[in-house]
Amino acid sequence: MTIAIIASNSFSGSALVDYLLSKTDDKILGFNRSPEYPAVMLPYLHRRERPGRFSFYHLDLNTKLPEIMEVLDREKPRYVINFAAQGEVAQSWNYPVKWFQTNAVGVVGIMDALSRRDYLERFVQISTPEVYGSCNHQKEDPTLFNPSSPYAASKGSADLFCTCLHKVKQFPSITIRSTNVYGAHQQLYRIIPRTVIYRKLEKIIELHGGGQAVKSYLHIRDVCHGIYLAMTKGIAGGLYHFGPEGGGISIRNLVGLVCSALGQSFDSATRSIGERTGQDQAYILDWTKAKRELGWSPTVSLKEGIGEMISWIHEGWGDISKLPHDYIVRD
Amino acid sequence: MTIAIIASNSFSGSALVDYLLSKTDDKILGFNRSPEYPAVMLPYLHRRERPGRFSFYHLDLNTKLPEIMEVLDREKPRYVINFAAQGEVAQSWNYPVKWFQTNAVGVVGIMDALSRRDYLERFVQISTPEVYGSCNHQKEDPTLFNPSSPYAASKGSADLFCTCLHKVKQFPSITIRSTNVYGAHQQLYRIIPRTVIYRKLEKIIELHGGGQAVKSYLHIRDVCHGIYLAMTKGIAGGLYHFGPEGGGISIRNLVGLVCSALGQSFDSATRSIGERTGQDQAYILDWTKAKRELGWSPTVSLKEGIGEMISWIHEGWGDISKLPHDYIVRD
Repeated sequence: MTIAIIASNSFSGSALVDYLLSKTDDKILGFNRSPEYPAVMLPYLHRRERPGRFSFYHLDLNTKLPEIMEVLDREKPRYVINFAAQGEVAQSWNYPVKWFQTNAVGVVGIMDALSRRDYLERFVQISTPEVYGSCNHQKEDPTLFNPSSPYAASKGSADLFCTCLHKVKQFPSITIRSTNVYGAHQQLYRIIPRTVIYRKLEKIIELHGGGQAVKSYLHIRDVCHGIYLAMTKGIAGGLYHFGPEGGGISIRNLVGLVCSALGQSFDSATRSIGERTGQDQAYILDWTKAKRELGWSPTVSLKEGIGEMISWIHEGWGDISKLPHDYIVRD
Repeated sequence: MTIAIIASNSFSGSALVDYLLSKTDDKILGFNRSPEYPAVMLPYLHRRERPGRFSFYHLDLNTKLPEIMEVLDREKPRYVINFAAQGEVAQSWNYPVKWFQTNAVGVVGIMDALSRRDYLERFVQISTPEVYGSCNHQKEDPTLFNPSSPYAASKGSADLFCTCLHKVKQFPSITIRSTNVYGAHQQLYRIIPRTVIYRKLEKIIELHGGGQAVKSYLHIRDVCHGIYLAMTKGIAGGLYHFGPEGGGISIRNLVGLVCSALGQSFDSATRSIGERTGQDQAYILDWTKAKRELGWSPTVSLKEGIGEMISWIHEGWGDISKLPHDYIVRD
């Protein structure tokens, strides 16, 4: 069996490649607009240990859809999982057209093309709770959209098309909305790695709006497991939420946890700055449907996950300290 | 004062130009991707009678946004009203990417650009009830989206960005959702002119799904009046519905009304064919908010409007009989 992953270099995409290589005997195809990372930099064990099962295609969804479809039509994957997206929320205010070009038009293109093929068992679209706007124990609702950023609006646009394709043409979609994901090998500008890196560099961490916004953090291994269950057991057209046990955690308290795991004082490590444009108060999802229908529940505690992140950064410090720690917009 | 209309050649756009020329003393700017129609073909009286107040710019929103913004920045319109859209629902299934490119990305581009200007009093986005999916006496709901076609999904995408821009950046938007509009000079492939033309040609009218789908028809003059009231009196960020008195009418009964106004038998004039992809059962809007807040209500009865359409086609038959009567997708 073959599984294709669009944006296989992304944090979650590459983690899912690794998860699938370890969990299944399937052939995995990865597509990405940037070249594959060199072998020595590959974060995951299984890709190195089980070579030959993963094939990488350096193709950009925005400009090379025909070439991507040529590969897919030849390989006829049973599952296609799409992580391709311009992901950064704050930057989306500066380049909304760019965000819509990828997150709406690019994704509409591949969904449209795949809806005309007969080999597909499931298309998995990785959406975001941000399409709901601020939410607290939100249940799955495929018709509710109240985005607070161009990022969220553009992700919602792809969801509108996906839902419509399923409703009218029985497109076998699965839509995933997961709370904030984290884990080793994550982009360094995300809050947990950023906190660890800044403290190692003795830099002050700036907290937008004092870090009052509430998010909820789910470990990448739990996300990958959820995606796998949803695509293999989920009902076509289904929308699934994944999130941690309990409610959310404020950014302030999250950074506090990281500081305390590093043995540092929160107060001297942080400084409050102005709130982000369109910051939602909270993103907390109700994921009882995933538990009930898929038998999913999270397994990695935030404390454990933070410890793992710290080890990863300590051990990789030779490389990580040389990398840029801020988000870079690419064309 | 200056008012700018994007897609001023469209049926509704050109009708609004005419309405504003007759109703106000304002300077009107029109932008369109196709050249302006020759003077002899201009449908509306006021543009001919009051020359010099209307300026036309042959500029495509998808490719010439910088040039459009150059004109707007020079003229500093108080109001910008956007009709630009790929409008045909059935064709949107064949070219969803094209529909998203114009209806989402193109419109996001101009909204983003205008949100960075300080001369704008209101930006009016012409949306559609189709973003709700099938609806019956639907009240205004800016967070409900259940589209049944790529057209509706792409229109919804622009609405997501518009709502978000207002919510976060106080973009002074007005969103209009009006039921099916009709009137003289409408595109000939729309159901009312099509019925008249087909009967004049003694062609059989094909009714998708037997014409059971319920729509509601509002005359273009009532729509123009509603847009004018909404943009001058509506609250920034507001969403307004416009529709006819009473409920909806099935396509079957509508075609029956036209046949009977032509003195023809419905049964021998029509034939039932398969239902359209994603045909919604009904689009009926509750417009009591427009009545309450704007003092708007419809003035042209369907019977009166149909009579006017028939006269228009009779009188213009020399030209109309030579024009294509079906929808043509342009690049």
